[in-house]
Amino acid sequence: MRMVDLIEKKRDGESLTTEEIQFIIKGYTDGSIPDYQMSALTMAVYFQDMDDRERADMTMAMVNSGDTIDLTKIEGIKVDKHSTGGVGDTTTLVLGPLVASVGVPVAKMSGRGLGHTGGTIDKLESVPGFHVEIENDEFIKLVNENKIAVIGQSGNLTPADKKLYALRDVTGTVNSIPLIASSIMSKKIAAGADAICLDVKTGAGAFMKTLEDSKSLAKAMVEIGNNVGRKTMAVISDMSQPLGYAIGNALEVKEAIDTLRGNGPEDLTELCLALGSHMVYLAEKASTLEEARNMLQDSIKSGKALETFKTFLRSQGGDASVVDDTNKLPQAAYAFELEAKEDGYVAEIVADEIGTAAMMLGAGRATKESSIDLAVGLVLRKKIGDEVKKGESLLTIFSNTENIEEVKQKLYENLKITKEKVPAPVLIHGEITV
Amino acid sequence: MRMVDLIEKKRDGESLTTEEIQFIIKGYTDGSIPDYQMSALTMAVYFQDMDDRERADMTMAMVNSGDTIDLTKIEGIKVDKHSTGGVGDTTTLVLGPLVASVGVPVAKMSGRGLGHTGGTIDKLESVPGFHVEIENDEFIKLVNENKIAVIGQSGNLTPADKKLYALRDVTGTVNSIPLIASSIMSKKIAAGADAICLDVKTGAGAFMKTLEDSKSLAKAMVEIGNNVGRKTMAVISDMSQPLGYAIGNALEVKEAIDTLRGNGPEDLTELCLALGSHMVYLAEKASTLEEARNMLQDSIKSGKALETFKTFLRSQGGDASVVDDTNKLPQAAYAFELEAKEDGYVAEIVADEIGTAAMMLGAGRATKESSIDLAVGLVLRKKIGDEVKKGESLLTIFSNTENIEEVKQKLYENLKITKEKVPAPVLIHGEITV
Repeated sequence: MRMVDLIEKKRDGESLTTEEIQFIIKGYTDGSIPDYQMSALTMAVYFQDMDDRERADMTMAMVNSGDTIDLTKIEGIKVDKHSTGGVGDTTTLVLGPLVASVGVPVAKMSGRGLGHTGGTIDKLESVPGFHVEIENDEFIKLVNENKIAVIGQSGNLTPADKKLYALRDVTGTVNSIPLIASSIMSKKIAAGADAICLDVKTGAGAFMKTLEDSKSLAKAMVEIGNNVGRKTMAVISDMSQPLGYAIGNALEVKEAIDTLRGNGPEDLTELCLALGSHMVYLAEKASTLEEARNMLQDSIKSGKALETFKTFLRSQGGDASVVDDTNKLPQAAYAFELEAKEDGYVAEIVADEIGTAAMMLGAGRATKESSIDLAVGLVLRKKIGDEVKKGESLLTIFSNTENIEEVKQKLYENLKITKEKVPAPVLIHGEITV
Repeated sequence: MRMVDLIEKKRDGESLTTEEIQFIIKGYTDGSIPDYQMSALTMAVYFQDMDDRERADMTMAMVNSGDTIDLTKIEGIKVDKHSTGGVGDTTTLVLGPLVASVGVPVAKMSGRGLGHTGGTIDKLESVPGFHVEIENDEFIKLVNENKIAVIGQSGNLTPADKKLYALRDVTGTVNSIPLIASSIMSKKIAAGADAICLDVKTGAGAFMKTLEDSKSLAKAMVEIGNNVGRKTMAVISDMSQPLGYAIGNALEVKEAIDTLRGNGPEDLTELCLALGSHMVYLAEKASTLEEARNMLQDSIKSGKALETFKTFLRSQGGDASVVDDTNKLPQAAYAFELEAKEDGYVAEIVADEIGTAAMMLGAGRATKESSIDLAVGLVLRKKIGDEVKKGESLLTIFSNTENIEEVKQKLYENLKITKEKVPAPVLIHGEITV
């Protein structure tokens, strides 16, 4: 088999066979296929696409390029949730304890990563003492006992995907549905998921800006999952503005606690119930989505969800008393209100840029070497469609410096107010199952 | 400027600016742009094409990537001829002395290369004593004196094209009109051509198999030439069967001599007159194509063309007496006739495969290290449309071994005879000028 022939085959719009895709991914991982052939192939894929079978083969070839996590010692169906990423997305912090509280095993492997705020691990480290440096056996024991544990990423998972993503990033082929979908799905499957619940964001603050593209990506991933024997579904949720109110690490932990207590932002609560119902249903802990939703609502009402969160924090060294006294979380030195300059209605909250403002305060990493300030961030006081009076606060800036003029200017530029009434955006744009 | 942005720009169907194309070619030549970005760009070009201005910019950027030959010391307009390559193409050997004999300066820089037979230099070396190892000053003096000289390739011409061609060869982007056209034209321009006469072959034995593709390539090259200030035109000529009769080095020299004497194959003679007329016209040695053709025909009739060939050979150390006694050219030990197995008409002579048969005899190089047998090759006795009787010779195999079963089998497979009458193919499918 010669790589150049496979490039030409794809270039001419033909499908690559399972063996050909395995040859490509194996050869690229071991270095026998050079970057310059792989980048030509991915550009051909960009233009010619891959069919469902090719996408499934691509995903499994990448799964098999490295280590895979064995979660078989954990009882029950392991459902993993994945979000395509947005701004102020606190769902993971809420959903973990929430679904665990009704018996769904949550065995979360997480990273730190770059972005507007830290990753799930960074956020959880706002809780004094909490850590993810636990042994694999301990991790499995904890999930079996408490239904939830979080561990840092280890092992050489999907090296083909890592190498390929780095290449796509510099060769103009990031934005290709078959490549995005197989990349995401390979990581979830290598991490041991039996079933996968996807939160595909759509809108200005999301990777996929249009509903059409978001639907295509969601469909692509759901098809892959089901074609490789992992029950998969997707919710398409709004990211035209940040989700919930908080953008920041400790601030989002506080918001998650509020939500688990039943006092969270409406949109965050609703999205967690929607995603959570599907997770409970996929884990076969409920026979209908309605039953699943009732279980979750009961768990919030009864305090069981919050109790599960506390047990989880405690079991990984965390001070669970923060749940009842959130002042024990890292606190910023200053809180400044961003006051509305006129009367009107909030028309736009450009999520991306608001996220960048949070990063400028220190909430996220611009490079791998950056350090994170867990205390800082933003809390929205108004969302799209809300009425606002001149002088009222649009959001609160939590900062460890008084020098926030640049941040304020960015925020003003990206929080638009109009005279006309504006409808609040729809939260859930659709669900994809097969 | 970032290469990834330029890849995405082309990927999205936009035109690259002159500065952007210069940045790309300069960066690729000096190594600051890696192969993997260049191959992604060329695949994007494969799908999105380049407009006329981009193609001209690409050509000149490649010209400027290395040395260029200065032919200004040669009097007159230097017209270069270029063929896109076929089988048994003896035109260069005929055209050089033919147009020189009417005063057009032919300053030919040539190579050896791979293929069914050797390059122009290999062929000329069939003449005992002939060599191309001459100094540059000597080369220019000879062209001014005799109007014709041939020199081996020297200098670092179009390094960007060499590097890019090697990359395209292994990444599935050879077959892209803007890339082929700019590659060919950059080499001609770097070699000092003032005007360019292109022979674009079409048919089974050509690089471009269809008339449509051949026309597109011809148009692309003519546009580039004229856009960068080199008068350029193209003839589209048939390569559904080998041109002339001879395929082999000394055999083609003999055929060229026959043609210069006025006794050559009809198709070869006609194509040389067609291309030659354009060269004479482009060199401004005639004011109409008809006048140019008459000059060339007169030169053949008067013996002046043949005399110019002799002078040329002599001036570069060759034994010009071969022209009057072609038995002095290298002779093969054996001549075998390939006899027709049935009565009928020659319907197909698959040029590619016939060329490969010649190479199997030793007439061409399969790899750079192969040595060439100048004596061996094939001489067709019949061409498409000719009637043939069982037992009559279809062609003569000139070989230095008796072991030619494999070659014979290949030839029989690729010389098809039918019962029905077959028309002879059209030789010249069109001319492109602007």
